[in-house]
Amino acid sequence: MKKKGLLIVVSGFSGSGKGTIMKQLLKKYEEQYALSVSATTRQPRPGEVDGREYFFRTTEQFEKMIGQDALIEYAQYVGNYYGTPKAYVEQQLAAGKDVILEIEIQGALKVKKKFPDTLLLFVTPPSVDVLRERLIGRGTEDAETVKKRLGRAIEEADGVEEYDYLVVNDDLDTCVEEVHSIIQAEKLRVSRNINFINEIKSELKGE
Amino acid sequence: MKKKGLLIVVSGFSGSGKGTIMKQLLKKYEEQYALSVSATTRQPRPGEVDGREYFFRTTEQFEKMIGQDALIEYAQYVGNYYGTPKAYVEQQLAAGKDVILEIEIQGALKVKKKFPDTLLLFVTPPSVDVLRERLIGRGTEDAETVKKRLGRAIEEADGVEEYDYLVVNDDLDTCVEEVHSIIQAEKLRVSRNINFINEIKSELKGE
Repeated sequence: MKKKGLLIVVSGFSGSGKGTIMKQLLKKYEEQYALSVSATTRQPRPGEVDGREYFFRTTEQFEKMIGQDALIEYAQYVGNYYGTPKAYVEQQLAAGKDVILEIEIQGALKVKKKFPDTLLLFVTPPSVDVLRERLIGRGTEDAETVKKRLGRAIEEADGVEEYDYLVVNDDLDTCVEEVHSIIQAEKLRVSRNINFINEIKSELKGE
Repeated sequence: MKKKGLLIVVSGFSGSGKGTIMKQLLKKYEEQYALSVSATTRQPRPGEVDGREYFFRTTEQFEKMIGQDALIEYAQYVGNYYGTPKAYVEQQLAAGKDVILEIEIQGALKVKKKFPDTLLLFVTPPSVDVLRERLIGRGTEDAETVKKRLGRAIEEADGVEEYDYLVVNDDLDTCVEEVHSIIQAEKLRVSRNINFINEIKSELKGE
């Protein structure tokens, strides 16, 4: 029996290395995972391929997707739309793949509201000191840059208490294995297997 | 920094193989885990060693432990006391070991109430059919025996919805790895790392 896959949202501080972790995870367990590709109305940058980095859409096309409820979540940044097309995610889940979305917390919480089964992971550097170092550098940045980065990090952490797991990126390989373990272990949660439990109980009582 | 260990209760159907899984887990990762030894007032059976299978105590000694709140949980079966001494568990947790208690659901729920951080795992055979086969045999048992076993299994499953994870014992090695993954992944839950998150947040805001 092919079980439905799990929807996983990964967020984290800029510089937490979450992109690299996900790339390694998908490379190592390509049979198991699928990475969701976002749609956007921004222009492709040199080297970006439609359907790989993003699905590049016109504003008209994007707003049509909104109207058809074809996006799991979407938001506007600097005059452009960004969103997660629903169809691809649902196809992959139905095929038993665990689908990973890499989005920030506010989008993640919208996804969780729509799909309460979603697993939320947040990636951080190994300590506050390391985070601080990555954010403000070694004292060579000007005050304005430091202030801007800290401000962004505060925004990036807003709502993290509602996440399920905190993944500490100390060593890349360890971290990839941790993420894989978290996701696979999560499938064994009683709340995700209530049908199996009810089946056992009714079988026992029906004899 | 040595983190405090996790308290884990493992329950399961008779014949689910939970004892064997735990033995393998402790053998494979002996640095990581400690198995809690229960106290009992029943007589030792041939080959049983005090402090290994059980701490063998007199009724007077046991009731003194109850009076001193020295047991995490206890119950009476067939005229004997059985319980979990608190001191050993707390020592091991403080030393960073993950401590495993093998007790039935009713005792487990008492432990969870006293220590809400406790992780509850329930072990089942891979399918209802296999469970059924193990319980009632291949039709060679008399009706009374079958009825008794089913009755016990119904009791054994009562309250399983309140457990955290359902571990399916299909293949022993896989199962041991799953249990290890579940426990180690569980340590990364946001709810168990709220101090780290608050530290990061206040550090970011304090700059």
